Amino acid sequence: MASFGHGGNAKEISRENKINYKDIIDFSANINPLGMSSSVKDAIIEGIDEIEKYPDITYFELKDSIEKFENVSKENLILGNGAAEVLFNAVRGVNPKNSLILAPTFSEYEEAAKAINSNIIYYNLKEENDFNIREDILHDINENLDLIFICNPNNPTGVITEIDLLKRILNKAERNNVRVIIDESFLDFRKESFSMIPYIDEYKNLIIIKSLTKFFALPGIRIGYAICSDLTLKEKIESISPAWNINILAEIATKAALNEKNYIKKSIEFIDHEKKYLYNEVREIDGIKVFEPSVNFILLKTLIKIDLKKELLKNNILIRSCSNYVGLDNRYYRVAVRSHEENYRMIKIMKNIFKMHRTEQ
Amino acid sequence: MASFGHGGNAKEISRENKINYKDIIDFSANINPLGMSSSVKDAIIEGIDEIEKYPDITYFELKDSIEKFENVSKENLILGNGAAEVLFNAVRGVNPKNSLILAPTFSEYEEAAKAINSNIIYYNLKEENDFNIREDILHDINENLDLIFICNPNNPTGVITEIDLLKRILNKAERNNVRVIIDESFLDFRKESFSMIPYIDEYKNLIIIKSLTKFFALPGIRIGYAICSDLTLKEKIESISPAWNINILAEIATKAALNEKNYIKKSIEFIDHEKKYLYNEVREIDGIKVFEPSVNFILLKTLIKIDLKKELLKNNILIRSCSNYVGLDNRYYRVAVRSHEENYRMIKIMKNIFKMHRTEQ
Repeated sequence: MASFGHGGNAKEISRENKINYKDIIDFSANINPLGMSSSVKDAIIEGIDEIEKYPDITYFELKDSIEKFENVSKENLILGNGAAEVLFNAVRGVNPKNSLILAPTFSEYEEAAKAINSNIIYYNLKEENDFNIREDILHDINENLDLIFICNPNNPTGVITEIDLLKRILNKAERNNVRVIIDESFLDFRKESFSMIPYIDEYKNLIIIKSLTKFFALPGIRIGYAICSDLTLKEKIESISPAWNINILAEIATKAALNEKNYIKKSIEFIDHEKKYLYNEVREIDGIKVFEPSVNFILLKTLIKIDLKKELLKNNILIRSCSNYVGLDNRYYRVAVRSHEENYRMIKIMKNIFKMHRTEQ
Repeated sequence: MASFGHGGNAKEISRENKINYKDIIDFSANINPLGMSSSVKDAIIEGIDEIEKYPDITYFELKDSIEKFENVSKENLILGNGAAEVLFNAVRGVNPKNSLILAPTFSEYEEAAKAINSNIIYYNLKEENDFNIREDILHDINENLDLIFICNPNNPTGVITEIDLLKRILNKAERNNVRVIIDESFLDFRKESFSMIPYIDEYKNLIIIKSLTKFFALPGIRIGYAICSDLTLKEKIESISPAWNINILAEIATKAALNEKNYIKKSIEFIDHEKKYLYNEVREIDGIKVFEPSVNFILLKTLIKIDLKKELLKNNILIRSCSNYVGLDNRYYRVAVRSHEENYRMIKIMKNIFKMHRTEQ
């Protein structure tokens, strides 16, 4: 609603370009290419009659599952209709006058801040630093600031910020009464731990936000949550959230998904392998600069004048143009990791496009 | 989230009272007793793989269906994750300093107003007037007021406010720059038209809110909307709503449900018949005062000292205590219309309870 410039809008694109929706291979949305686990689908179908009842307003069992999966206490959990809702309500709860936002980053942070008329300050991630957050971010943390948004790994750059720097940010923020929202929606794709969840009790000013729908390939049913040890803030956020905000099929799917140890392991291994394949293949293409991926998407930059999204769409391949990200422009694109066959096909077509382009010139 | 005093919390009750959840007959939630239409269930199962994709962020096809069903223009529609979300965001959009709320009424209006720290003024519905809104409500509409909430028919009293009075309220409100939210979530249960939707263009200060999930028995998947002809306000409300707030199965279910002409007709006839049966039977019981129902629930008042909810729960029948409604107390209960067999059983047990009670005294 807030912004129409997102990826994953294959239906809109198919209408605009008169392509059959089913024919589009969607590299614009960062969803686990293994798809929903069959046990999750079975659980939804088996539980379908539950639709006729209101969800449990306390979400007791759902919180139980997340508690075990994340190894956090139920009392630190705030549920949302996707990470987007929990983000908007967390920002309403904090009610920041001044917010620090990375540029480029996921646009919903800015939308959430704008929804409450917060003033926005950008911390510019520089291409010369490979879009890394640097220590100079500490200079931007002062008593005039109220909230910082950090996406880890950052969308669309894929850059991971190390725990050590995050702790320094949190410490300085704490001294200046600044809250820090860290969005870890893509971290489940990594075996190694970069998560700040183990430090949740240590930092009362930390709010971790997670979407489960990317890793478990369930974006259509909407489930996300925040983890926060400041119980006063938690209660405030819950008091401004509407009742029954998680639909019952999202509850059923989440409970089933979080038990899928094999799916989790397989997904991590698959993404790790395929992201390297994609990275190495795109690196070979003359005319593209590619940034090293950390999870299931990859940022690239065209070095020649070309509308790569348009060219790929002629072959029914949809990628995400990054032209509407603050700090990027129409040379940048984000491509999701998909199945090996789809990645292979996309690479082949991309190689052809750049080959043709060179021949024409 | 906002309030735990709602009906439809059979799971919570079953945990607290150690009753098997499946054994509870839930008269506390106002859901169409015909249950979800089989074509809706089929559509959800058939569309289940759509979960792996983001919903269409523009909700083009969903808005199309609602446009046809309500005979309103797409451009006047604001979608929400249940009526609760659209209500909270509408109130944020209006941002009232002072809000007028009926007492008793559905508690989420007050929760939504409190979430933005609005001052609340009550218009007391009096039992001596059969809980009708009277013309004296016009005295409460002045330039200090910003927003009025009217639930039509009102939950939990079942009272319908006539179009003529609503127009007078809207006119006086318009002259005083006051917005009026009319919640028509239960009006689909009535054949006759009491809806203000045909007057949406006439009153720019009118916001109609609807839940589809009660009539179509889909409370678990969350779908609601607002209808409003003030496009500036509409855009403001949409700008503060998170992206993808309607899950894809709610979209699929809604599109299927709105086509079910037979189900709609059958439901209206069934509720009309059963509500009369329930009303007439409860009237017979010595010790209960019952208020005439308009839709699929019925308000009653015990005239003797009894915890009717507790007594019925011993027989696995769950009804809604109205003790937490502003303006009511622990003598009042709300009972939903369910299947004839279930209504018959509930009535039989209720009659026994009051008979036993008289014998004991």
